[in-house]
Amino acid sequence: MPVNLLQVDNNQLKPISGVRLGTARAGIRKPGRRDILVIEVESGAAVAGVFTTNRFCAAPVLICREHLSFSDVRYMVVNTGCANAGTGEEGLADARATCDELARLTGTRSQQTLPFSTGVIMERLPMDRLLAGLAGALANLPYGTWGDAAEAIMTTDTQAKAYSVNALVAHCNITVTGIAKGAGMIHPNMATMLGYVATDAAITTELLKTLVKEVADATFNRVTVDGDTSTNDSFIVIASGKAGNALITSESDPAYSELRAALVKVALPLAHAIIRDGEGATKFITVQVEGGKNMEECLKVGKAIAHSPLVKTAFFASDPNLGRILAAIGYAGITDLDVSKVRLSLGDVLVSEHGGRAASYREEEGQRVMKETEILVKVELGRGPASTSVWTCDFSYDYVKINADYRS
Amino acid sequence: MPVNLLQVDNNQLKPISGVRLGTARAGIRKPGRRDILVIEVESGAAVAGVFTTNRFCAAPVLICREHLSFSDVRYMVVNTGCANAGTGEEGLADARATCDELARLTGTRSQQTLPFSTGVIMERLPMDRLLAGLAGALANLPYGTWGDAAEAIMTTDTQAKAYSVNALVAHCNITVTGIAKGAGMIHPNMATMLGYVATDAAITTELLKTLVKEVADATFNRVTVDGDTSTNDSFIVIASGKAGNALITSESDPAYSELRAALVKVALPLAHAIIRDGEGATKFITVQVEGGKNMEECLKVGKAIAHSPLVKTAFFASDPNLGRILAAIGYAGITDLDVSKVRLSLGDVLVSEHGGRAASYREEEGQRVMKETEILVKVELGRGPASTSVWTCDFSYDYVKINADYRS
Repeated sequence: MPVNLLQVDNNQLKPISGVRLGTARAGIRKPGRRDILVIEVESGAAVAGVFTTNRFCAAPVLICREHLSFSDVRYMVVNTGCANAGTGEEGLADARATCDELARLTGTRSQQTLPFSTGVIMERLPMDRLLAGLAGALANLPYGTWGDAAEAIMTTDTQAKAYSVNALVAHCNITVTGIAKGAGMIHPNMATMLGYVATDAAITTELLKTLVKEVADATFNRVTVDGDTSTNDSFIVIASGKAGNALITSESDPAYSELRAALVKVALPLAHAIIRDGEGATKFITVQVEGGKNMEECLKVGKAIAHSPLVKTAFFASDPNLGRILAAIGYAGITDLDVSKVRLSLGDVLVSEHGGRAASYREEEGQRVMKETEILVKVELGRGPASTSVWTCDFSYDYVKINADYRS
Repeated sequence: MPVNLLQVDNNQLKPISGVRLGTARAGIRKPGRRDILVIEVESGAAVAGVFTTNRFCAAPVLICREHLSFSDVRYMVVNTGCANAGTGEEGLADARATCDELARLTGTRSQQTLPFSTGVIMERLPMDRLLAGLAGALANLPYGTWGDAAEAIMTTDTQAKAYSVNALVAHCNITVTGIAKGAGMIHPNMATMLGYVATDAAITTELLKTLVKEVADATFNRVTVDGDTSTNDSFIVIASGKAGNALITSESDPAYSELRAALVKVALPLAHAIIRDGEGATKFITVQVEGGKNMEECLKVGKAIAHSPLVKTAFFASDPNLGRILAAIGYAGITDLDVSKVRLSLGDVLVSEHGGRAASYREEEGQRVMKETEILVKVELGRGPASTSVWTCDFSYDYVKINADYRS
């Protein structure tokens, strides 16, 4: 059961002018469910993406990187049920054939299309069903919604993930809407499993390439379910330019920061939604690390805590076995850490200081916080001014069950 | 249930001349079980150790490091039930008081004693019961066995771990006997939770300091249960010098390599025993990585596979979802890895080559190997001559159960 994850409300998802969505039921892995999404982008939009750092990255990731270098993307196609990763040369040919067919059907060039896949690794795509499904998804473009699109890209997700905001950029009202999927194999290292955020704001493609990295870094790159970096992570931002704001051409333009803030406002709840829907999750945990010398060491500590199976099972059990958090801080890789300066709090309860248990700490207080479903772990390193947060979930029986059963 | 872990046979554990063991039931955490071990070493023995790299290392680890700089160790005391880690200045005072009392009872100096603790983190030692138990353990010295000692240091272990061999060193018959404990919070980074190996061979203390690192690196530093590096990892080698071999004084002496081989023969099965008894383990997995440019990158790949919760749950389910192993190889951190040269085998079955599924691979074959309890994962990187192995276990419901319940 997802942790405090609101159902997607189609009525609150704002369309983005210049972007249309179409879905189809192609029977890629299971019959009867939406499993293909086509995104159509009007000519002139800026599109940029970041992708997994996994060396065994999926064939579609390789093709996306290649096609994005042409920067006049018009169509994207996402299939669920099969990741087309660990599929060698045949997998690359399958991804190219998908782009070719989409280009043929839409009268565009193959390089103007981006392919995405998610699902089981090391299996070939069912090309007949995938190609046959493209026409249906294109026919659905006039009717497709962001809610349907969010549903079409799910794998082990128990709920669709979509979010929408309005914002002012250079005094112009803009809209940002995004979708994401992911619940396991989540330790994004560039981006999440799959995330698509669109805005009608106008920005150059070059600048959007910088912006998409900054947004991924502040959102999807700060969450982890199980520490496994996927082969297919992709995060795409589309800027259709229909909002009427003056084209953003420089990072020093205040509108750049305004747009970044608006994109983060959508990308962060999407990243959090992945954790809230994390495989087997029963709790949503924010690990806030302060007082680091630099961001890098704050991240090391945050991720060591967020990855520790011992910490995560203790959260599942509501057991304030907080020494496990101290142990994770200790092995996070800060070799000159002075543990006597570290302070650890759980919610509003100071747990540890001066290298040991805080004199004021009462186990009942720790227990009270551990029983909540939204938990803040605060670490003060006492070394400098840097801080950051990472987000994770607990580790339950159901994580094992889901991953022991996933393919069967 | 441990995986193919033989019960300790007291009759096969060879005593080490110059080393005596005494245990007691002090009621540290639970009444009625052996929970204190005292090891007595005759004057003139060489003793060396390696310890956790965790910055939140336990108070006894700090004291061990300090006292080992004096290098005339006569007594060691190990308690289970409480780790005396994350206990600040009070914890240090407790560990020193333990040494003081042991020195008083034995007529030695406090610096000639080494304290060790294992158990729950961030709780103070019950000093009254611990100090009271020392006399009982000392009184047991004439009768204590290595089997009793192995039992006295257990925490969540389901079986005691002890092993013994004879070997020839410089044509002289020597004996090596060792014990270890550990089942969770296992990702040793210098040594395991606790391991003690004694030999009657003669070697200088200086050289033993080098040797203990080499042995730990080949054995305990190659295993992982959950990727959590403990606060209390300690691995000690005692060389009593009673065997009659000529004192080993140089690494270039062939006897040095002979002794190292003999120590590894005991330390490796002890390290494997920790995995076989890994929390919730149902399978024993050897990850053999070959064809690396250097040992470091082989280790990165081996550990990425051995740490992946997705890989480990797939082994639990006997599900040949082998794309998860490719994904782990891909994110292991070899940034210039050419995945088209990587070969992956499961036991005798070639699973993947040329970046995808091997043409010869049949899922029934993968399934057959996955159902075994002893599984070999072989990765050939195709980059160079280096190779290494790491060992791990699968990830089951019981891992979660054990760690959600550990303190209750």
